Amino acid sequence: MKNKGLVFVISGPSGSGKGTVVDELRKICTDVGVSVSATTRKPREGEVDGVNYHYMTREQFEKLLAEGEILEHTEYNGNYYGTLKREARKIIDSGKDLILEIEVDGGSQVRNLMGDDCVLIMLLAPTAAEQERRLRDRNTDTEEAIAGRLAKAKIEVAMAPQYDYIVLNETGKTLECANDILHIINASHYTVSRMRTVTDHYFD
Amino acid sequence: MKNKGLVFVISGPSGSGKGTVVDELRKICTDVGVSVSATTRKPREGEVDGVNYHYMTREQFEKLLAEGEILEHTEYNGNYYGTLKREARKIIDSGKDLILEIEVDGGSQVRNLMGDDCVLIMLLAPTAAEQERRLRDRNTDTEEAIAGRLAKAKIEVAMAPQYDYIVLNETGKTLECANDILHIINASHYTVSRMRTVTDHYFD
Repeated sequence: MKNKGLVFVISGPSGSGKGTVVDELRKICTDVGVSVSATTRKPREGEVDGVNYHYMTREQFEKLLAEGEILEHTEYNGNYYGTLKREARKIIDSGKDLILEIEVDGGSQVRNLMGDDCVLIMLLAPTAAEQERRLRDRNTDTEEAIAGRLAKAKIEVAMAPQYDYIVLNETGKTLECANDILHIINASHYTVSRMRTVTDHYFD
Repeated sequence: MKNKGLVFVISGPSGSGKGTVVDELRKICTDVGVSVSATTRKPREGEVDGVNYHYMTREQFEKLLAEGEILEHTEYNGNYYGTLKREARKIIDSGKDLILEIEVDGGSQVRNLMGDDCVLIMLLAPTAAEQERRLRDRNTDTEEAIAGRLAKAKIEVAMAPQYDYIVLNETGKTLECANDILHIINASHYTVSRMRTVTDHYFD
């Protein structure tokens, strides 16, 4: 019994394995909507507005940002990319959930804009030592970059109280981790506040 | 990754199908402890104190009750039966969860005594009309008894805000319902407050 969808924010420090877990989660999670992002990048040949992206000017994007109409965004190659609040609203109103994989510091912004319609999940490696080992194993970062990522993780883990759930991604247990998040997604629909429409109308 | 167990209270009005769902849940839920109840009934031949029950006098039971050492209790055939707080504490400290199937009005008492170590789940039929149909189908109650149970349900549903989760037990979907509760049980271990020991020691 689902009334309405919810926005699930999944964040985690670099080395938490967020990308792999979210890929696995999308395979096992049904009823998930796909949001069309907004971008200030020019449409390429064959791309359709509202299908590939919602195309807009930099001014339009920044106006929406200032108005709190953009849940999360990033800048890449001089262009903005972001998730429109109205796009998220459309998906959850249709009864589907939306999964947003975003930076840890973006979680509280989504909460401010979506209120009780979102659930914030932080993914962590079991320990900082294990996180560091994963960063080293990638063989892509300099020592300086690794130190920077670990310093950033200190700030990110300190943001845990802004989140609803903390899930550990144990090494070699991607599927178990995705499954834990799936259970959180299912359970979140049954909180008393979200079941209010049912209890309020039980005797109708 | 589970640190510690939790007490899960499952309550619901008569006709919610609580008993059947909890039976199903116990089959699919691993890591659940079994608590030895306290009773004022005399031990029968072969029964062992601390194994079958914790046997005690009426005075001892009432003293523990007054001291807030009994999570929930009932009286049957002139004897008290109840769950000791220290018994629940022992189980959850060992890392196992405890499932208590109790009356709706007992939920807030468990919350008062267990704090954040318990999760309250209320089970409901999809609607009051469906609940009434189930009560009639049992063919065990008089019209007066059914009216009484429905009147009681009004009071019970009004207690929903004291609970954490509301789960609907749709007719013919016992296993789905037990599964929803299983997801709530798993998810509850990952709330930020319960993962605090992990986040606090992440960099140790």
